[in-house]
Amino acid sequence: MRVTAVRTARAPWPRRALGALRDAVDNVARHSPARLALLVFAAIIAVVTALLSLPAATRAEEPATFVDALFTAVSAVCVTGLTTVSTATYWSGFGQAVIIVAVKIGGLGVMTLASILGLAVSRRIGLTQRLLAASETKTTRLGEVGTLVRAVVVASLAVELAVFLVLLPRFLSLGESLGPAAWHALFMAVSIFNNAGFVVLEGGMAPFVGDWWMCLPIIVGGAIGALGFPVILNVASRLRGDRRLSLHTKLTVVTYSLLAVGGSLAFAVFEWRNSATLGELPVADRVLASLLAGVNSRSSGLSTVDLGVASDATWFVTDALMFVGGGSASTAGGIKVTTFAVLVLAIVAEARGDRDAEAFGRRIGTTTIRLAVAVAFLGATLVGVGTLLLLALTDYHLELVLFEVISAFATVGLSTGITPDLPDAAKYVLSALMFAGRLGTVTLAGALALRQRRRVIRMPSEPPIVG
Amino acid sequence: MRVTAVRTARAPWPRRALGALRDAVDNVARHSPARLALLVFAAIIAVVTALLSLPAATRAEEPATFVDALFTAVSAVCVTGLTTVSTATYWSGFGQAVIIVAVKIGGLGVMTLASILGLAVSRRIGLTQRLLAASETKTTRLGEVGTLVRAVVVASLAVELAVFLVLLPRFLSLGESLGPAAWHALFMAVSIFNNAGFVVLEGGMAPFVGDWWMCLPIIVGGAIGALGFPVILNVASRLRGDRRLSLHTKLTVVTYSLLAVGGSLAFAVFEWRNSATLGELPVADRVLASLLAGVNSRSSGLSTVDLGVASDATWFVTDALMFVGGGSASTAGGIKVTTFAVLVLAIVAEARGDRDAEAFGRRIGTTTIRLAVAVAFLGATLVGVGTLLLLALTDYHLELVLFEVISAFATVGLSTGITPDLPDAAKYVLSALMFAGRLGTVTLAGALALRQRRRVIRMPSEPPIVG
Ligand SMILES: [K+]
Ligand SMILES: [K+]
Repeated sequence: MRVTAVRTARAPWPRRALGALRDAVDNVARHSPARLALLVFAAIIAVVTALLSLPAATRAEEPATFVDALFTAVSAVCVTGLTTVSTATYWSGFGQAVIIVAVKIGGLGVMTLASILGLAVSRRIGLTQRLLAASETKTTRLGEVGTLVRAVVVASLAVELAVFLVLLPRFLSLGESLGPAAWHALFMAVSIFNNAGFVVLEGGMAPFVGDWWMCLPIIVGGAIGALGFPVILNVASRLRGDRRLSLHTKLTVVTYSLLAVGGSLAFAVFEWRNSATLGELPVADRVLASLLAGVNSRSSGLSTVDLGVASDATWFVTDALMFVGGGSASTAGGIKVTTFAVLVLAIVAEARGDRDAEAFGRRIGTTTIRLAVAVAFLGATLVGVGTLLLLALTDYHLELVLFEVISAFATVGLSTGITPDLPDAAKYVLSALMFAGRLGTVTLAGALALRQRRRVIRMPSEPPIVG
Repeated sequence: MRVTAVRTARAPWPRRALGALRDAVDNVARHSPARLALLVFAAIIAVVTALLSLPAATRAEEPATFVDALFTAVSAVCVTGLTTVSTATYWSGFGQAVIIVAVKIGGLGVMTLASILGLAVSRRIGLTQRLLAASETKTTRLGEVGTLVRAVVVASLAVELAVFLVLLPRFLSLGESLGPAAWHALFMAVSIFNNAGFVVLEGGMAPFVGDWWMCLPIIVGGAIGALGFPVILNVASRLRGDRRLSLHTKLTVVTYSLLAVGGSLAFAVFEWRNSATLGELPVADRVLASLLAGVNSRSSGLSTVDLGVASDATWFVTDALMFVGGGSASTAGGIKVTTFAVLVLAIVAEARGDRDAEAFGRRIGTTTIRLAVAVAFLGATLVGVGTLLLLALTDYHLELVLFEVISAFATVGLSTGITPDLPDAAKYVLSALMFAGRLGTVTLAGALALRQRRRVIRMPSEPPIVG
């Protein structure tokens, strides 16, 4: 380190400053990749907040308030879609462009960006692998950050392009001219694949409740994004005949599908006769809206139905589905479907008296189970603390507060409609939840960990009685 | 078996029937102690339901409806205290006596009764030890069912007698004559130690909000019962200098105390200025009511304050405290404080990068952690399913439904007041929750387990990505 300091001291000051910054980032990256990711995340949110605070970002004369700019920035970078102001009517074209770029960056994964940054700062492969190991995409087998990033970018652009090409003629057929139609299709394609839940259409999604041409791309594109990059890459490799399907892919696809089907059925059951939501619609529209709701809740956040008038049972089921969320290293949030599946498998093994939790002929190790427990428990704790804070800060009852809190934590973006009316303090709480939820509870725990140690001497074991 | 059949076939028929019954019980006990406990539990509830259905059990001419008799029987045997009718005014003296005897039986633990039954059926020590291992009191170190049962009975009678002796002069000093005062003191003493939450006083508990003479025995007696028999016996042995304090005792007492203090503080914070609850009371009364609330929520279920007008934040905190509950093998319910503590310790170890979860210089093994995960997860699942059913069956919102469901699952008995007004179907749901909650999620899982097996061939391990 002393050698570096002497060398940079002799260089001209811009290079000295750059060298110092490089050393600082290098130091943080070496010490804790998770903390680096947290800092990068915060820095991007700060930039987006600043851009959205410009007078040019809003349609009105006056610029956005700090809390609205920050909330929107966090919601965009964390691909949530909760909004305190209307995306379609409050923000200018420039503001909307800032939002969708922030969504794109968030969707590619700030963890991936952190990996790139880490690679640029330090060429040592040791660090690269540590960064990768802790990175959001966690696909350590790719072995090379460049390949990983390229694959992520190519995969996301391919799906976004496909959704864009399907939606563009739809907007044209609705009578829009080429410019607005292309902008709407582009914005929606990025918003859909990244599960961002931002809507740039002034009439919202409600007019499309029976529009299969509009809703199917939302369902398919959102689902692909929510399954996660590791699944997309694994399936792509498999299609080229390179690799077998991993346990992760099988667990994710099966659990995701079961929860989506279950969620759709539950939505249909609880809303079929609710005249405020599905009750007055043709049967085909009810089916489509239910399908969309099943995928929605993990976590595109695009709803063609006003959830503010849905039943309490629907809210509660959606709470549970949102909390579980989508696939690991995906554009969806929540504790992730594999976390949920691992917990269920561990408990089934416990009830059966089996030694190991198993799935698809593979054993799931204790380390994985411990991690799943930690993620689920920390997630529940975050949701619990956030809920208590909002209950204390507002006059809303539990069913509304819990929905908004889980939607923020799991970066879903569905809303019963209370977010715009919340006091500033509550908006900050939701912003913090989106940030913590997107960073991942385990990454956060790692970043904030008090110490990392291996004890040589083990304590004698003694089992307390539980249950 | 053929030899036995031949022998009993030659005996007179009452002995043959008894022998067949003995064989049947023996078979169930040998096959699954948990299933035996479940059957014994259900049988006792059936008897109590039948007794409460007698015309003599109510004050009015007409007998109780089946749903009210069943609900009260389950609530009493499961030492919950949720009621669909007023214990003080609806039931006759005979009915109240049935309830308090049911409470006493429930408090001693049907698992203990199952052990006695098992001992009577089969003298083989192998079976006895298996029964003990799966028994509610789980103190395998006592090694002998007789000693265990005697200790449980002596300990409970001693605490109940102490509470009785403190409360009797209080009721006398309130102007009651000896008979009613003794009955009230006896009923309350059993109700308090067994954390049953049934109140035989016509004016309820509200008049005693500032009565330290009444409330301190409730707090202390309820806390001793909620810590659990293993803790009581361990502390008693320690006081005689026989044994060291076990990890179980330390974990239980520390976690229980922390949660009680935290619960009292939270109640005080959220209700201090609520004129409907504490706001109008003298400061000393507010402190006492908050202390009682902190102990209450795990799970005496006796409240001097009308929780129906408490704040949403108080309800939510109480939800969490009720869910955690009291000590293992105690008269309290919930997932138990040791389960909660083990989960927290495991997650702290995970975040710190430690190999083992540790407490008080002792290591907590993987088996214990797996069991804690299963108990917590199954508990959450039961609460979730119960909540969804009640949301679908009633028009109440989440904050009221969740409170009643957790109160039933954790056999607490606190209520916001909706239970008497629930439709019958919802009352059956709450009854099922009390039953499942009291039997213990793990015992239930064991009883319903599909199979018990040890696989020789282990699958290859493959870690999915979680979180
Ligand atoms: K979203
Ligand atoms: K109780």
